[in-house]
Amino acid sequence: MSEIYPYLKYVEKNLHFENVNLKDLALKEGTPLYVYSKNALLYWFNEFDSAFREINHITCFAVKSCSNVNILSILREAGAGADTVSAGEIFRSLTAGIDPKKIVFAGVGKREDEIEYAIEKDILLINVESESELKTVEKVAGKLQKNVSIAFRVNPEVDAGTHPYISTGLKTSKFGINYEEAIDLYKLAANSKWLNPKGIHFHIGSQITDISAFEEAAKKIANLVKELHSIGIEIEYFDAGGGLGINYNPSIPPIPSKALAEKLIPIVKEIGCTLILEPGRRISGNAGILLTKVIYVKERDEKLFYIVDAGMNDLSRPSLYKAYHHIVPVEEKNGIVKKADVVGPICETGDILAEGRELPELKEGDVIAVLSAGAYGFSMSSNYNSRPRAAEILVDSNTYRIIRQRETLGDLIARETLPPVK
Amino acid sequence: MSEIYPYLKYVEKNLHFENVNLKDLALKEGTPLYVYSKNALLYWFNEFDSAFREINHITCFAVKSCSNVNILSILREAGAGADTVSAGEIFRSLTAGIDPKKIVFAGVGKREDEIEYAIEKDILLINVESESELKTVEKVAGKLQKNVSIAFRVNPEVDAGTHPYISTGLKTSKFGINYEEAIDLYKLAANSKWLNPKGIHFHIGSQITDISAFEEAAKKIANLVKELHSIGIEIEYFDAGGGLGINYNPSIPPIPSKALAEKLIPIVKEIGCTLILEPGRRISGNAGILLTKVIYVKERDEKLFYIVDAGMNDLSRPSLYKAYHHIVPVEEKNGIVKKADVVGPICETGDILAEGRELPELKEGDVIAVLSAGAYGFSMSSNYNSRPRAAEILVDSNTYRIIRQRETLGDLIARETLPPVK
Ligand SMILES: Cc1ncc(COP(=O)(O)O)c(C=O)c1O
Ligand SMILES: Cc1ncc(COP(=O)(O)O)c(C=O)c1O
Repeated sequence: MSEIYPYLKYVEKNLHFENVNLKDLALKEGTPLYVYSKNALLYWFNEFDSAFREINHITCFAVKSCSNVNILSILREAGAGADTVSAGEIFRSLTAGIDPKKIVFAGVGKREDEIEYAIEKDILLINVESESELKTVEKVAGKLQKNVSIAFRVNPEVDAGTHPYISTGLKTSKFGINYEEAIDLYKLAANSKWLNPKGIHFHIGSQITDISAFEEAAKKIANLVKELHSIGIEIEYFDAGGGLGINYNPSIPPIPSKALAEKLIPIVKEIGCTLILEPGRRISGNAGILLTKVIYVKERDEKLFYIVDAGMNDLSRPSLYKAYHHIVPVEEKNGIVKKADVVGPICETGDILAEGRELPELKEGDVIAVLSAGAYGFSMSSNYNSRPRAAEILVDSNTYRIIRQRETLGDLIARETLPPVK
Repeated sequence: MSEIYPYLKYVEKNLHFENVNLKDLALKEGTPLYVYSKNALLYWFNEFDSAFREINHITCFAVKSCSNVNILSILREAGAGADTVSAGEIFRSLTAGIDPKKIVFAGVGKREDEIEYAIEKDILLINVESESELKTVEKVAGKLQKNVSIAFRVNPEVDAGTHPYISTGLKTSKFGINYEEAIDLYKLAANSKWLNPKGIHFHIGSQITDISAFEEAAKKIANLVKELHSIGIEIEYFDAGGGLGINYNPSIPPIPSKALAEKLIPIVKEIGCTLILEPGRRISGNAGILLTKVIYVKERDEKLFYIVDAGMNDLSRPSLYKAYHHIVPVEEKNGIVKKADVVGPICETGDILAEGRELPELKEGDVIAVLSAGAYGFSMSSNYNSRPRAAEILVDSNTYRIIRQRETLGDLIARETLPPVK
């Protein structure tokens, strides 16, 4: 049987992740259920990381895409660092055993206590996104009497041509510093007693499939590095961000990471830097799926609804971005195909997993797999409608283990003080 | 000083909720911080509930809008029941001491275990949304050997003219049963040994400001009730749902609940039913605010950004629905007004609280209040970017108490099994 995605395939009409039968898993552990494959994760990590092997580089996994400490730990063993955007993400990375010297910290709104935490933990780079933040970092470094290595996130002002919500390389966005002000800010940092401007960072957006956008941005930033070198500011780390797209449709092959590497490597070689990369979706996206059960089939007039037990609180990308997620049943069906809306149990019209989708006819009790749910899936989930969050499962060859327990009703109110009983 | 919303006003240039100074509160309890006013909550509850006092009615607060058990408990004391959509919401309502005979349970995707829970707890009505669900309810009732009172949620097929995401009265939506099939389904239920079809339910959408939509829907549903009465099916409860809009802009007065009551009361009187209402936003929306601090001020070219410490994980309505939330500083300023984007710390372009908003000039460290955040605020919040969720505070006259503790870093991973240490 051919694979739908690496390690995901039908074996005798039953969908398997590695050697684990997903119908059995759903029956045993319940739905909705996030399931990751260890070997798929390693496959995607290596597909990416090995493309850059000829140069010094650190692949810092974007923790925001998939934050479970067990996922981070697997990637750590494979050699990954971490791209973080909060104290919480640094904490997770350290808990997973990631070397602080492989952790970078970005984000437009770093609080002072978060900066303090990052400095105390001796991470590799704080990617500074504004002059005000620079001052805060300097203040905290002074307070702690510690030298701090920083990069500036510079806006290359390249339009990645993606969805307005996830295109971040524009001059009008909240991210990074302007290209034109970079030199002055680097000088400012270089003159500080506590700051060591060793890196440069950019990130142009997410789910990018046009490699030329990366090339254009990298060239602009490399020119800046040359200018900085010429004035004696030694930039060691060239952080090209994340954003390489995946194939949400399994029938369209993904862009090979090599294509990105071929563009970036000569640029980075020329300036003699260590390359940092921050892929998130590319590594975790197709290493995870969401299993959900059809609770009710509802036909009305011309419309067919499959009401499933995963809602927008479990996977918000379809309602938030109108994102496409491929859906397949865990038991292969060769019969009738029907057009249907796959909708969740949340009391909102926007709680839709798929609209007008051609699917094999489903009946109540059938389990379906929502694919490409490994990135921005569980990490964005909420308790909306007082729904306990799903469990997370990690499959490895013939075995699996629960890497996050399903929440209980009690968990929902665990941090609430109970009201006075009358 | 005049009030911005009931119980929210500046006293000597300092914003107060009841008698609590919000700047002091933010300093003491940290930000982001959800703050509710007990008396504002009661004000809005009574404004609504008293409008219907001349007829038998139950005001079932829509728990999804604001789910903290302490909020539910206050409303319970004031006489409220609960409109719920999950086992979690029933659990919360019972924990808050709400009489099960004042709890209704709606939702298109009720799982069997949730139906079982609802039946065991003897709630007032299960609002059934499909024929398949009816069968499941019957099956579970039979298993438990218990008579179960139900309503059907009937689609009045009235367009509330609101945002497509929150308009639910349409024939093409996933909600409810079709008007045309209602009689047959009531007959089916009436013939069941275990089911007692005692109610009828409709809900046309949320944030509705056009009262005539309610009237049109209520009349259609009342006609159905007359038909049901004529064939001997005694409908006791007429559940008109929620959805009455609030004023997100404090300078525009809200529609009085009386306007809704005037339309509904004659309709319900004529058919001799007890009226159930399910307001959510109307009661909690303007009884809560979100306090957040300006971390960085960022100017670039023509654009001004206030980067604050509350993100789309804390309040998702602006990014999810492009919803408007009024913003005021906790220290009144009479100086310069500037146009700015108020954005959160999340690494997404869509993480915007206000776009191109005219605001008094703010500086770093200033605390602002995002108004009308009591409904669909905390209840939709997530841990995205590994951000611990905010605390919730309840203000009562001169005092306040924490009704939900701020999450810690440890909470983020509390349900994750720790990876093997190497
Ligand atoms: C700075 C930064 N790096 C990396 C990423 C990861 O992006 P992706 O998951 O598309 O690779 C993001 C995504 O928001 C980001 O903001
Ligand atoms: C069935 C039902 N009742 C009540 C409500 C509460 O709506 P609102 O908060 O607009 O009053 C909702 C909202 O989704 C709902 O779906």
